[in-house]
Amino acid sequence: MAALSFELETTSVGSRARAGKISTDHGEIHTPIFMPVGTVGTVKAVTQQQLKDDVEAQIILGNTYHLYLRPGTEVLEAAGGLHKFNGWDRPILTDSGGYQVFSLAANRKIKEEGVMFQSHIDGSRHLFSPESVMDIQRSIGADIIMAFDECPPYPSEYGYAKKSMELTHRWLDRCIQRLADTPDKYGYTQNLFPIVQGSTYKDLRKASCEYIASKQAVGNAIGGLSVGEPEEMMYEFTELCTENLPVDKPRYLMGVGTPWNILECIDRGIDMFDCVMPTRNGRNGMIFTTEGVINIKNKKWATDFSPIDPGLDNEISRFYTKAYLRHLFVADEILGMQLASLQNLSFYLWLVGEARQHILAGDFASWKTGMVDQVKRRC
Amino acid sequence: MAALSFELETTSVGSRARAGKISTDHGEIHTPIFMPVGTVGTVKAVTQQQLKDDVEAQIILGNTYHLYLRPGTEVLEAAGGLHKFNGWDRPILTDSGGYQVFSLAANRKIKEEGVMFQSHIDGSRHLFSPESVMDIQRSIGADIIMAFDECPPYPSEYGYAKKSMELTHRWLDRCIQRLADTPDKYGYTQNLFPIVQGSTYKDLRKASCEYIASKQAVGNAIGGLSVGEPEEMMYEFTELCTENLPVDKPRYLMGVGTPWNILECIDRGIDMFDCVMPTRNGRNGMIFTTEGVINIKNKKWATDFSPIDPGLDNEISRFYTKAYLRHLFVADEILGMQLASLQNLSFYLWLVGEARQHILAGDFASWKTGMVDQVKRRC
Ligand SMILES: [Zn+2]
Ligand SMILES: [Zn+2]
Repeated sequence: MAALSFELETTSVGSRARAGKISTDHGEIHTPIFMPVGTVGTVKAVTQQQLKDDVEAQIILGNTYHLYLRPGTEVLEAAGGLHKFNGWDRPILTDSGGYQVFSLAANRKIKEEGVMFQSHIDGSRHLFSPESVMDIQRSIGADIIMAFDECPPYPSEYGYAKKSMELTHRWLDRCIQRLADTPDKYGYTQNLFPIVQGSTYKDLRKASCEYIASKQAVGNAIGGLSVGEPEEMMYEFTELCTENLPVDKPRYLMGVGTPWNILECIDRGIDMFDCVMPTRNGRNGMIFTTEGVINIKNKKWATDFSPIDPGLDNEISRFYTKAYLRHLFVADEILGMQLASLQNLSFYLWLVGEARQHILAGDFASWKTGMVDQVKRRC
Repeated sequence: MAALSFELETTSVGSRARAGKISTDHGEIHTPIFMPVGTVGTVKAVTQQQLKDDVEAQIILGNTYHLYLRPGTEVLEAAGGLHKFNGWDRPILTDSGGYQVFSLAANRKIKEEGVMFQSHIDGSRHLFSPESVMDIQRSIGADIIMAFDECPPYPSEYGYAKKSMELTHRWLDRCIQRLADTPDKYGYTQNLFPIVQGSTYKDLRKASCEYIASKQAVGNAIGGLSVGEPEEMMYEFTELCTENLPVDKPRYLMGVGTPWNILECIDRGIDMFDCVMPTRNGRNGMIFTTEGVINIKNKKWATDFSPIDPGLDNEISRFYTKAYLRHLFVADEILGMQLASLQNLSFYLWLVGEARQHILAGDFASWKTGMVDQVKRRC
């Protein structure tokens, strides 16, 4: 089957925003796109049917760290890969596990070889190396697989950031080699995206972009942002990266962000996003809507019988009321988390879809300004 | 609008099993029927859309005690009743709250007037009386509302069981009076079902059936069973009640039970069932299927990629595999509880639907014998 390809449909006037189409062996993705996070092979509290029919997701994420620990590569291989295991037949992207190793695992030891760590579940010891992580992602069978990288914290000293970036580059070469040495497992093409690092140092980011670009991958990712730095700095470094990454390949900004973050970064030339915010914050009662941000636990919604979000077309957002959703959260009912997750994901997919329409229509820049205000509003 | 009516379609040969049709202002119910329990206005972990499309529920329950405490009658009245509040436009039945007061609330004091208790949520003090419980159920707006009764524990002394039954009968008269004195709130008819009590004493049960029958209600319920007595005793007393309750009115056996309990009690002339078992046990990983009972957490399902239940027609049961469902439970994912609840409820509705078909076809008795073995099997 065929390697991932990207068709750049249009670029905005007065903005770096682009509309495009990614083709994979599991189907097409219209960009800019938001990718719901399906940590352990499930987008939390959402069925695969709802992801397709209500959320209209085009691609979902899986976390290599989580899937490696549970259900494990043996089960995934027996199933014929993650698509078969969870029944999601559209594209899947897996991260490299690096980020989770640093945020969840215990007793990490980082060396040239890779990272030794202990599972946060049972304390068992494991090594993640560029080679083992490529092998694991082969077993998971994602359409897009991420290079193994180190993601330095914010802030990082210049010296550390530089060393870490260089390690990430050496690891990238080993990832590329390993993939060249191993075949696709399930008959369709798996595509590697390398990751730009370099913390918040302009020369490092630029050097990293150049190194990554030189690999001529089918798509490129920007890591190490949205890790605690101010929003304006995140925007600045995103733009620096998009200025220095190939124009004709999709650009993926990892782990970003709020609805307004996404609009601002589309404006700066990003095509792909993922974030746990719509699901995680949703499970805590933070609802993103076309009317603004809602804390649904607030007493003021107790008798508000208007739809959760009259601005969205999907059944869930229009069928259930704010008062009912509030009641579900107050009574600690699982259905509250389900509806909040569906609403927030539907909203995120709506937002990138609208952005795409306005890029294609040629009025993205002016639309964005108004929409940032609208989605940022606290109701 | 019209009071609830019941059309008895057929009675089995060699069995008391009946097929019938209940008509309410919110639509028809084909009996025998199982009613999913929607405690606080939500069948836990299941959307109203899934209840209709996947489970094919015809009527759901609400718990008066829970709904009275949260969201409270003020919110429910502002919404225009529970149907409007949660969006379920088919029939709803509410219990009287008596059972929850005895199982959940603190510092209960039972008197002729009613029951004083403290909320299990915030310790606030409340009185449930026949009158207040009718008023609350008026505000909730269920199509079928249950009389306020005392449900004695098993075992109970004869003297206590008799006194308790007599109190339940006096309370019933006050319920009937209160409903006569108050209008329907939302333009459709609310129908009272009285409840037979009498513990495990044949003369008391018989006397209670006669008293309840004398009220000529549109439907009748049997309470105080499945509270810890042996299964055979439960069957024996169910049959004693169906022998002594009107033939031309639906009979509702409260809080029963396992799939085989339901088949045995259909055999003894019961038309309506409710139970938290499919949802509560489902959330703990106990899966009821056409192949038998499954503990989905068991290691043996780790690589079983057969559908959760190939014997059911609904999308969820056929789309997801046992291995995936096990993984969701092992990884403690919400989606596991969602899929298990959908499977178990779909199975319960399938089971009563099959029973109905076999009653209509005239081969219920022989079908039941085989089916009891099949659904009881431990896989
Ligand atoms: Zn628009
Ligand atoms: Zn059959």
